[in-house]
Amino acid sequence: MLETATDAVVESFRETKDRRLRQVVESLTRHLHDFVRDIEPTMQEWESAIGFLTAVGHTCDDTRQEFVLLSDVLGVSMLVETLNGSVEGTESTVLGPFHMTESPRRELGDAIDLLGTGRPCVVSGRVSAADGTPLPYTELDVWQCSEDGFYDVQQPDVQPPGNGRGLFHTDGEGRYWFRTVVPSHYPIPTDGPVGRLLDATGRHPYRPAHVHFIANAEHHRPVTTHAFVAGSPYVDSDAVFAVKRGLITDFTESYDARDAERFGVTVPFTHAEFDIVLAPEAETKQ
Amino acid sequence: MLETATDAVVESFRETKDRRLRQVVESLTRHLHDFVRDIEPTMQEWESAIGFLTAVGHTCDDTRQEFVLLSDVLGVSMLVETLNGSVEGTESTVLGPFHMTESPRRELGDAIDLLGTGRPCVVSGRVSAADGTPLPYTELDVWQCSEDGFYDVQQPDVQPPGNGRGLFHTDGEGRYWFRTVVPSHYPIPTDGPVGRLLDATGRHPYRPAHVHFIANAEHHRPVTTHAFVAGSPYVDSDAVFAVKRGLITDFTESYDARDAERFGVTVPFTHAEFDIVLAPEAETKQ
Repeated sequence: MLETATDAVVESFRETKDRRLRQVVESLTRHLHDFVRDIEPTMQEWESAIGFLTAVGHTCDDTRQEFVLLSDVLGVSMLVETLNGSVEGTESTVLGPFHMTESPRRELGDAIDLLGTGRPCVVSGRVSAADGTPLPYTELDVWQCSEDGFYDVQQPDVQPPGNGRGLFHTDGEGRYWFRTVVPSHYPIPTDGPVGRLLDATGRHPYRPAHVHFIANAEHHRPVTTHAFVAGSPYVDSDAVFAVKRGLITDFTESYDARDAERFGVTVPFTHAEFDIVLAPEAETKQ
Repeated sequence: MLETATDAVVESFRETKDRRLRQVVESLTRHLHDFVRDIEPTMQEWESAIGFLTAVGHTCDDTRQEFVLLSDVLGVSMLVETLNGSVEGTESTVLGPFHMTESPRRELGDAIDLLGTGRPCVVSGRVSAADGTPLPYTELDVWQCSEDGFYDVQQPDVQPPGNGRGLFHTDGEGRYWFRTVVPSHYPIPTDGPVGRLLDATGRHPYRPAHVHFIANAEHHRPVTTHAFVAGSPYVDSDAVFAVKRGLITDFTESYDARDAERFGVTVPFTHAEFDIVLAPEAETKQ
């Protein structure tokens, strides 16, 4: 009888013209019904679930996306990102909710930090193809939070627009470098229903410190990723499950005078090296 | 690696104090990840899903519950109702979104129809326990739409409040009867995202004609159910999957003069008999 109930719903979608949509709604129905059968909710629990989803919807506005946050804390965003990621190139991770403004165009060596507070550092690396060929003039979109853990868009009155952001291009040998401050770990927004869910389930809301990258080169698959700061608090318990081992990057003291001259800084300086490998465009999905 | 991703999310809930909540969020995580792995959404499809859920949330207000509607058309409401229903008594079905006002207290034989349009009929029956013992003075909450397919709350300017509604008590022998009009089939609201989903999947939005009942007697499990009008359009394809065979009720011409006298009508009259059986309070959940 219960199996029949699920079949009836699946069958109701038989006239769906779009084949992909039909596949999605049928799979959704089967998995959703399996979940309901597994937990056997009371009517009160079902009402609570409806109330929770409604509150998540009502928390969404032009600058806040609570359903993305819910997807993030349930590990769904990261799973979708991984399913779509490259196997040959640098591992991808979540885009996150703060890539909402265009990054200002900057030259190699420029500072993306406009505040002057925090521990100064240089981030540098090389973008190459899977076979090791350097990828010159690759577009690199970079963004990060301040040492206080805020993105510029979160503090429009405190931080100048574009703080922590930069749109770079690699040089003729695929290299890039820019000056910034070491970003901080920070909490995702906790004043909505997702924050209440984390609280009720004994979970902290923190993300480990990281610098965001999107690398985009002709004839290659773009990658959306982070350089995570090695040793950052929460690097082993990211609230959105976005850490991949290969993305953890040392931010270390450097006494290399040649590097210092190239980057326009003086020794000693904090240095992070983060190389990016792009898979060919035609790579088959894993 | 992907399995590990799911395990990491499940593991993150280990500190949840409420054992039931932990069971629910763990099951939700596993089923949701299984769904995502099954369909392997592109990033664009994931964004569409976020957009759809957000639109459903934004459609909810004080008088409209689009997440309930979504639960209804995916057969989830009916599945939850069935899981919570009785095995010994009359089958239950969905409460629906129109039980939002208190039904006016009425005497047996009263009319719940205040409009005077539509095909007049008498609905009668007996409420008894599973062993056949009549249940006198059982509270019966009854509501239905008009012959035009609208509930009073949907047309506050056209229909008087309380039209189609009545709160009755069975007599000393567990019997009830009231006058009304034969309800119409009707569409669920289609002007929101759920309506667009039905449209995209080639589904109609109609529910077959029915009269709602909630029966409540001391020491028995209350039941929420419908008497469906036999032969109504869509009785085989209810948009919310709420039809159960045993609830389909004949609305027939009666020439029974004794019944007519008892109900205060003249022959011939349209008559529907709908008996209700209540399970004992202590019945174990199926």
